[in-house]
Amino acid sequence: MTKYQTYLIDLDGTMYRGKEKIPEAQDFVKRLNDQNVQYYFLTNNTTQTPEQVANNLSKNHQIIASPEQVITPSLATAGYIKNMFGDEITEHSAYVIGEFGLKSAIFNTGIQLNEVDPDVVIVGLDYDVTYHKFELATLAIKRGAFFIGTNADTNLPNERGLVPGAGSVISLVETAVQHKAKYIGKPEADIVDFAAAYKGFDPSQAVMVGDNYNTDIKCGLNAGLDTLLVYTGVSTHEDIVKQSRKPTYQIESLADWDVE
Amino acid sequence: MTKYQTYLIDLDGTMYRGKEKIPEAQDFVKRLNDQNVQYYFLTNNTTQTPEQVANNLSKNHQIIASPEQVITPSLATAGYIKNMFGDEITEHSAYVIGEFGLKSAIFNTGIQLNEVDPDVVIVGLDYDVTYHKFELATLAIKRGAFFIGTNADTNLPNERGLVPGAGSVISLVETAVQHKAKYIGKPEADIVDFAAAYKGFDPSQAVMVGDNYNTDIKCGLNAGLDTLLVYTGVSTHEDIVKQSRKPTYQIESLADWDVE
Repeated sequence: MTKYQTYLIDLDGTMYRGKEKIPEAQDFVKRLNDQNVQYYFLTNNTTQTPEQVANNLSKNHQIIASPEQVITPSLATAGYIKNMFGDEITEHSAYVIGEFGLKSAIFNTGIQLNEVDPDVVIVGLDYDVTYHKFELATLAIKRGAFFIGTNADTNLPNERGLVPGAGSVISLVETAVQHKAKYIGKPEADIVDFAAAYKGFDPSQAVMVGDNYNTDIKCGLNAGLDTLLVYTGVSTHEDIVKQSRKPTYQIESLADWDVE
Repeated sequence: MTKYQTYLIDLDGTMYRGKEKIPEAQDFVKRLNDQNVQYYFLTNNTTQTPEQVANNLSKNHQIIASPEQVITPSLATAGYIKNMFGDEITEHSAYVIGEFGLKSAIFNTGIQLNEVDPDVVIVGLDYDVTYHKFELATLAIKRGAFFIGTNADTNLPNERGLVPGAGSVISLVETAVQHKAKYIGKPEADIVDFAAAYKGFDPSQAVMVGDNYNTDIKCGLNAGLDTLLVYTGVSTHEDIVKQSRKPTYQIESLADWDVE
């Protein structure tokens, strides 16, 4: 019998580091797969579709992954607005700042696009963001649209350094409308609640695996899951010593984890 | 003898309301002019040059104004970096997010343009802002550039409503670099200190005139000036009742103010 029925696994810093492979991660996923343990990749990336994420894992990192195993704040936000509007979603409307991964998830729900007086404004990372988009989002929220931020990550790494993330883009709109967005992605519990309902697993039998205390581990703690911190990415031993709420487990590499 | 030697006068809400004239304002400035009282227009608008601001006042509102009477955060920021770098300013460099009014003031100092490792990053309102500009600003500040925000106004009015102001644009970069900008415009005392030094007036003999408690009156209070609140714009009697630091004077319209 395995320790956990379901693994929720972070990507960057856990499954790979940017373009660099983590061989222990590849082996870890192979062992989950061999033991028929359920696993999902839980990423805060909203710019790509599940197909693109799974393709990157399998083609560039030789990690066994299908699109159905990928959970993003884009999907979770789509789930959130489906709950919000129910069967009448096609009679409601949204304005979205974001990349194709976010827009495709949102508009696949059947919600209408509306730039003037939408019911909901959803803001995520958008490499083509302009003042005009910020203006439309601000005016719509001031007119009463519900304001969702996909995820609060202030930065993300690229080849030049730490560049602005979704949380930075969202903060411009928060300042302009003078209130905070409702966030969906890690560390919010919403994305885990969505994943559990969507994929039909029992959170009490699941574990959250990640390298970043502030997103992955806090998300597990917020959702009431056991947590497994792996020191192959952002968080260091010194960071964790300072935290009052510790991860359930701490390991140097995924090679140190026995799935049985 | 007049009550004050120098008047520092706000524009929108005080001299006009958007495109709407305020006849009492036109008359007030005429009386200052007739009495040979020194007056300057102190605006947080960074998008226009002093020539454009003076032109709007005289052509569209029949208010006696010359470019030399216009003080903006663009000019004050240019003054601030001149103080910072002194005679060696032409050996230093800046990256600027902003409109022509800001860029022309900054690069007229002789400082060089640098998108990669500038000494200072200056962020203001920019209707053509893009993710790429935010990325350049963020990376430069993270590399050690000094971070200046022209002014903290979260919103500005346009014909569609309250749209994002400089403060909102700046907040994106603040979130991405995880620290606050040094602000120059109202309500900071910096812009008054600059104006006094640049124009050679005595702040103890000056009064700040404006309609907005949070920008105009706070600026006067921060700079140690007497203040005159006029109820023709943003702030209401109810707003002022709540404030522990009151304006020196409160009037319904500039017709109620005697310059002698």
